Amino acid sequence: MSQAFPDATAIAGSVRNRDVSATSVVSSALARIEKHNPLLNCFTTVLAEKAIQDAEAVDIAIAAGNDPGVLAGVPFGVKDLFDVAGIPTLAGSKINAENAIATQDATLIARLKQAGAILVGAQTMDEYAYGFVTENSHYGASRNPHNPDHMTGGSSGGSASAVAGGLVPLSLGSDTNGSIRVPSSFCGIFGLKPTYGRLSRAHTYPFVDSLDHLGPFARSVRDLALVFDLLQGADPADPVCTGRSPQPCLPELTKGLEGLRIAVADDYFLKGAEPEVLTALETVAKALGTNQQITIPEAHRARAAAFVITACEGSNLHLEDLRQRPQDFDFATRDRFLAGALIPATWYLQAQKFRRWYRDRVRELFSQVDIILAPATPCPAPLIGQTTLMLDGQEVLLRPNVGLYTQPLSLIGLPIVVVPVQRPGQLPLGFQVIAAPHNEALVLRVAAYLETQGIVSAPVP
Amino acid sequence: MSQAFPDATAIAGSVRNRDVSATSVVSSALARIEKHNPLLNCFTTVLAEKAIQDAEAVDIAIAAGNDPGVLAGVPFGVKDLFDVAGIPTLAGSKINAENAIATQDATLIARLKQAGAILVGAQTMDEYAYGFVTENSHYGASRNPHNPDHMTGGSSGGSASAVAGGLVPLSLGSDTNGSIRVPSSFCGIFGLKPTYGRLSRAHTYPFVDSLDHLGPFARSVRDLALVFDLLQGADPADPVCTGRSPQPCLPELTKGLEGLRIAVADDYFLKGAEPEVLTALETVAKALGTNQQITIPEAHRARAAAFVITACEGSNLHLEDLRQRPQDFDFATRDRFLAGALIPATWYLQAQKFRRWYRDRVRELFSQVDIILAPATPCPAPLIGQTTLMLDGQEVLLRPNVGLYTQPLSLIGLPIVVVPVQRPGQLPLGFQVIAAPHNEALVLRVAAYLETQGIVSAPVP
Repeated sequence: MSQAFPDATAIAGSVRNRDVSATSVVSSALARIEKHNPLLNCFTTVLAEKAIQDAEAVDIAIAAGNDPGVLAGVPFGVKDLFDVAGIPTLAGSKINAENAIATQDATLIARLKQAGAILVGAQTMDEYAYGFVTENSHYGASRNPHNPDHMTGGSSGGSASAVAGGLVPLSLGSDTNGSIRVPSSFCGIFGLKPTYGRLSRAHTYPFVDSLDHLGPFARSVRDLALVFDLLQGADPADPVCTGRSPQPCLPELTKGLEGLRIAVADDYFLKGAEPEVLTALETVAKALGTNQQITIPEAHRARAAAFVITACEGSNLHLEDLRQRPQDFDFATRDRFLAGALIPATWYLQAQKFRRWYRDRVRELFSQVDIILAPATPCPAPLIGQTTLMLDGQEVLLRPNVGLYTQPLSLIGLPIVVVPVQRPGQLPLGFQVIAAPHNEALVLRVAAYLETQGIVSAPVP
Repeated sequence: MSQAFPDATAIAGSVRNRDVSATSVVSSALARIEKHNPLLNCFTTVLAEKAIQDAEAVDIAIAAGNDPGVLAGVPFGVKDLFDVAGIPTLAGSKINAENAIATQDATLIARLKQAGAILVGAQTMDEYAYGFVTENSHYGASRNPHNPDHMTGGSSGGSASAVAGGLVPLSLGSDTNGSIRVPSSFCGIFGLKPTYGRLSRAHTYPFVDSLDHLGPFARSVRDLALVFDLLQGADPADPVCTGRSPQPCLPELTKGLEGLRIAVADDYFLKGAEPEVLTALETVAKALGTNQQITIPEAHRARAAAFVITACEGSNLHLEDLRQRPQDFDFATRDRFLAGALIPATWYLQAQKFRRWYRDRVRELFSQVDIILAPATPCPAPLIGQTTLMLDGQEVLLRPNVGLYTQPLSLIGLPIVVVPVQRPGQLPLGFQVIAAPHNEALVLRVAAYLETQGIVSAPVP
C-alpha cells in the first residue's frame, strides 16, 4: 500500500478515531482535484459544496457519538454514467446534457454514502462507454498520472486516473468489454469487475444490457473487498440483481493460497502481448507457485461475439439520435454505433448462440482449476493520440484492440480482479485474476496474497 | 359431431369394445388416403405397412385382455416436421431429404402411440413452416376438402386437410404465427394452439424457437381435450417444456359458461375482415351471451414484431444453405429467408423489447376478462394460386396477410382454440377463443359449450 496515498480503509479509520475530521479529508481531496484535474482531466463535474456539507454531517455524527459508517469521510468519485441527484447523467456525451437532472443517486452511490463515504464528483469517460481510450471529443482525454502524455485507457479512464493520481482513494466505474480492467492496468491500480448481475445497475446509464457490469477501483485489495461487501445484495430496482449467493469477501483475504488450483491462460492469451507483459506475467505466476497452463477454447470467437453483441445492443439504444443528430456524437462512438445499427440480426443471433456454447465450455474449465491468470492488456499505456499497436508483429488499429484479453471474459460475466504488478521506473501493468461466477471472494483472496508478498501494489506517480 | 366421420373418442370406444378391430379402422383410413390423397395431397409420406403392424399389436393386446389405451386404434398423421423413426424429417423441404433418417419419434408422437393411437403418415406443409398457404413448390399444394380449388391455409395445411376430409380423425401440427389456426379456419375443423412451452417440442424441426408451438387438430372438442391431456407434462428432452401448472382439461368441458367473463376483441380485430366473417362472429358472440368488447392494444405493432422476429430467427437457422444453395429452397420461403438474413439486429432488438411491453399489457386485460373472441382469418379459404386479398377496400398481397389476426396472439404465447362455425352451403370459417397463459381448460370449455349448442362443428365435405 502506498505511503503517500492512504487507502480508504486507513482514511476511514483515522476519521472514526477522530485523528482527522471528515471535513479536513474532503477539503484536501478537493484541493488535490483543483490542483491536478486541469492536467489529468479525470473529473468532469466536481461537487465541492455538497461534498463539504456531507463531510460536515459525518463529523457531526461522530461528535454526537453515532456510528459514522465503515467508510466515514472517504472521498470517492463515480464514472459519469452513474445518476447523481442534482446533475444530468452525461455518460460522456454532449446529447445527454439536454436531459433532466437526476432526481436520485444510483443505488451503488447510495450504499457507499450510507457507509459514510463522500461523493466528490463525476468522472471522465468515453462517450456512452463505447471505447478503450477515454479520449472524448467533447470533454477531452483523461491523462495517466504516471505520465500525462500517455492514455488512461477506457472507458472508465477518469475513474482510474483519479485513484492512481491520489485525488480520491475510491472510484466506481463500469466494465462492458474491459472498461474497468483496461484502465486499471494502464493506471496501475486495483479494479474489480464482479460477476454479471452481482451489483445493482439501477439508476445508471446503460451501454449493453447483457454485458454491462459496475465495479470499484481502489489502491488496496482490502478496499476493493470492503466496498464490494457494502455494494453486494439484491436491489428491487434492478431485476437482474437478485442478490443470490451473497458472500462477504473481507474475511477471506487472509486465507492465502491453501487448496487453490491456479493456472495461466495459454494459447490466445499468450499471443500478441509485448515481451514485458509476458515477463511480468511470469513474475505473478511464479509468486503464485504455478506452472500450470489451461486453454480457454475459442477465445477469438468470444471476442468477435462480444464486438457484435456490443455494436447491436449499443446502437439500438441510440437509434433515434443516430438518425436525427449524428453530428452531436463523438466521431468515434458515432461511427461504431452507425455500423452496429446496420449489422444483420443473424450475426447477432449467431453471436448469442455461440455465447451460450462458450459459457458452458468455460464453466467446465473451473472443475479443473479455481483461478485463471491472464494479462489485462497487451501493453502498458500507449501515448494519447496513438492510433496503432503492434500485435504479434502486425500493426493494427489501437482502439479496437486494447481489449484483446478482456472481452472474451466479460462476455460470460466472470468475476475478475486486476492486480497492478510492481515495475519500478516503468509504466504500470495489470493482470487479470479470474474465477468462476460468484467467486469474487476467491479472486480477491489471491490478489490479497500477491499484495502481501509485495508482488502487486498501486505505484505512486 | 359429424355423422359421417366419427371422432377419435368414438373410434377408440368402438375398438376398445371390440365392435371393430384396430386393423380394420386403420385399413379403412389407409384406403381413404389412397383414394383421396392424389387430389387432396395432404400426406407426403404414408406409413401403411408400419401402421398395419401397429394396429395388429393393438388388436393382440385387446385379445389378451390388456388395456390398449384411450386412443386404441385411432389413426393419426403428423405435420412433416415431427421426427418419425425411420424416415428423414423433411419439414417440407427438398434440402432435408439429404438428412439422416430420424432414429426416434418426436415426444408427442410417442405419447399418442403410448395411448394406442396409430401413426399413418407425415403431412404436407409450407417449406420449413414459413407460410400460410401450403402451396409447396417441391411437393405441391394441399387442397381443401370442401372445395379442392381452394387452399387449406398453412403452414400445417396437410394436417388440417386430412382431418377435414375424414382421412384421419387427428393430426398434430405446429403454429408459429398461425399455422394451426389458419388451416383450422379454412378447413373447418377444431385446432388447439396451446400456451407457449406447454407441450414438448423435442425431436421436431424448429422454425422460430421463441414462437414455435405444437398442437392438435380434431373434429370434436372432446378429442382436442383428450389429446391435449395426453400430451401435457414435462419433458427432460425439451428444457422449455417444464410441465408447470398441469391441468386435465377433459373434466372441465361440461362446466358451461358459469362465471366466465367473455368479450370480443375490437379495434384491430374487427378491421379488414370480410362482412361474412363479422356476421359469423356475431353468431358466436350471441351464443356466448356477450356484447362486451375489449381492446388489445398495439396489435398492429405486435404483428410487425412477429414478422421481424420470425424472419430473423428463422433465417438464422438456414444461413449456411442460403449461402451455398439458395436454388434448392422453395422460392417463397427463400426470398423471405434472404430478406430476413439482411434485417438489422436493431430491428430485432426493438421487436423483442416491444414484445415484453405488449405481453405485460395483454396480461393485464385478463384481470378484466377470462375469454377473448376474435376471427381466425379475414376471409374463408381463397383459391389456390390466388395472390391478393381485399382488406378494408385495399388490395394487398395474400400470403403475408392471411395471418392478420393470428400473429399478434402467438407472439405472446396465449392458449387458443379455433372453433369452426356452421355455415351450411358456404366454405367454413373459424374463430379464435383466447385465454391467459396456461388456461387451455377455459378455452376448451367455451369451445365445448358452443359445440353443445350446435353453433360450431366440423362440417362434412
